[in-house]
Amino acid sequence: MSKLLLLAQKFNCFYLTGLATRDCKPFIVEGIQVGLIRPDVLQQLLKFPEVFIVTSGYVELNPAFRNYEERTIKVDEVLKKLRTEQKFVTLKGWRNECYEVKRDFSSSSLFKMDRCATCLFGIMNYGVDITGYVRHPELGICIWFQKRAANKQTWPGHWDNLVGGGLSVGHGILETAFKESQEEASVSKELMKNLVSAGSVSFFYESQRGLFPNTVFVFEIELPLDFKPVNSDGEVDEFELLPATQVIDKICSPNFKMTSVPVVLDFMIRHGIINIENEKELLRIIELLHVPLQTLYNNGIPKKYAFGIKENGENGPVE
Amino acid sequence: MSKLLLLAQKFNCFYLTGLATRDCKPFIVEGIQVGLIRPDVLQQLLKFPEVFIVTSGYVELNPAFRNYEERTIKVDEVLKKLRTEQKFVTLKGWRNECYEVKRDFSSSSLFKMDRCATCLFGIMNYGVDITGYVRHPELGICIWFQKRAANKQTWPGHWDNLVGGGLSVGHGILETAFKESQEEASVSKELMKNLVSAGSVSFFYESQRGLFPNTVFVFEIELPLDFKPVNSDGEVDEFELLPATQVIDKICSPNFKMTSVPVVLDFMIRHGIINIENEKELLRIIELLHVPLQTLYNNGIPKKYAFGIKENGENGPVE
Repeated sequence: MSKLLLLAQKFNCFYLTGLATRDCKPFIVEGIQVGLIRPDVLQQLLKFPEVFIVTSGYVELNPAFRNYEERTIKVDEVLKKLRTEQKFVTLKGWRNECYEVKRDFSSSSLFKMDRCATCLFGIMNYGVDITGYVRHPELGICIWFQKRAANKQTWPGHWDNLVGGGLSVGHGILETAFKESQEEASVSKELMKNLVSAGSVSFFYESQRGLFPNTVFVFEIELPLDFKPVNSDGEVDEFELLPATQVIDKICSPNFKMTSVPVVLDFMIRHGIINIENEKELLRIIELLHVPLQTLYNNGIPKKYAFGIKENGENGPVE
Repeated sequence: MSKLLLLAQKFNCFYLTGLATRDCKPFIVEGIQVGLIRPDVLQQLLKFPEVFIVTSGYVELNPAFRNYEERTIKVDEVLKKLRTEQKFVTLKGWRNECYEVKRDFSSSSLFKMDRCATCLFGIMNYGVDITGYVRHPELGICIWFQKRAANKQTWPGHWDNLVGGGLSVGHGILETAFKESQEEASVSKELMKNLVSAGSVSFFYESQRGLFPNTVFVFEIELPLDFKPVNSDGEVDEFELLPATQVIDKICSPNFKMTSVPVVLDFMIRHGIINIENEKELLRIIELLHVPLQTLYNNGIPKKYAFGIKENGENGPVE
């Protein structure tokens, strides 16, 4: 088995097996599915029937809440209670920084939620990552990585892309890219003129904390050979520049942040470092960098998609 | 509605609507689904019950055919009869060039079939496309296109990528890229050192001819400003170099080969020409450049994928 395919399956563990095996309920707001709720979370939400209406098939945010503000406040009250009662480890890391809750990226937002809580509801989240690289005359493409500070709330001490950040309420994509580049690695404005948008990756990961249907807007920046990143917000412990040949071992190691791996793979595929000549499973890996999150909860699934899957879940001709 | 999203929906017309609405049957070989058969094709296959076993749920190649050669010969005989009887327009363009029929790209092949016939069976096909571009000092990135010769069997007189070709039996991916670069555009071996593998696109198109679940291995090559492509196999009528700003109009025009559009979009997204600032539907477009063909016929579909889709096919909370 290709180790990169294995890795792509790991960061899609919920997409590939959780969706089918975990007993989650759709989370509905204003008739639109915006998330998925695991049984452990459901157990707690049942204690707030005036906020969450639980049926056999789904969990609905009380439709009596009429607008963005009211929904935001009502959900926030519940989350703060759950936090005080220490029901969920992820709520310990309260951020006072919110993500929008919406149907898909281009829809209008239904309410906002502290970013530490969105994984309890399987809310789609969006971020920005920048791969910083140099073209070394002998070593070829080399990639910069950062080691996350040991006191970070998520993935402390793990290796990560040079620059990254979640897209929180009120901040644009380019704005986030520029802000994080400055704070995390002190990339100058002059250098940032070389920033190139290069698409996105989407995957659906699950950890003990919760569900992560993540979409990352992917950027890259070619840096001069003598560039040295300098952290200015205390969130990075060190930086390292690695030749592309050593990157696969790096991302396969358990101290690399799993949810940052897709961005590295996408970069290495776009630049021909990983290709069909050296990776037999290239096509499956590419599929797993682009799982259809924008249409997973609503709409886009053709009814006959499951040709050839039998009632018992095994594959084969269906009669 | 974004015109690029509309385009992405057009080259995925079968994926987005055909799968759900067209009454196709899975095509099974050795217990593995390798294709889909439309009613018009089924009608003809019913006349060859010794080759195709038709049940209410699927069409199976007679399992009595024991190996690659026997399957190839038996199917070929049927196709040649259908060709003589002029049952299908696509068979007029017999190529004497075969595609492998297999479960997915990295599986071993079950038999081979003339490439003009694979669309009758919805067989996955694989190709190679090269985007040739220059970085112009004033105009920025400019892309080379070819106009297909008026006598080509498919998409005659349509605009297309600089270099492209199907992956036929016995030919490797890089080999095909080099061969076609030479024949179609006379790109020198020296220049080909700049060829970069950049991943793949996958989409599922349908036309009157048949079904096209296509995966293209995507390459790009930066060319010198003074490069001029020269055709040497008679399959190209002319070439044109276009600034990126004019490319969107080009690919939206009806005289651009629809099944080559995904490669252009992918290139423009990878190079930041199409980005989230100028294309609100970027994420959906990227999803439609990577539909999960490798797992569409077999395996990878989580049973609960269709959360939120009601029995009647409409969306909404499912109870």
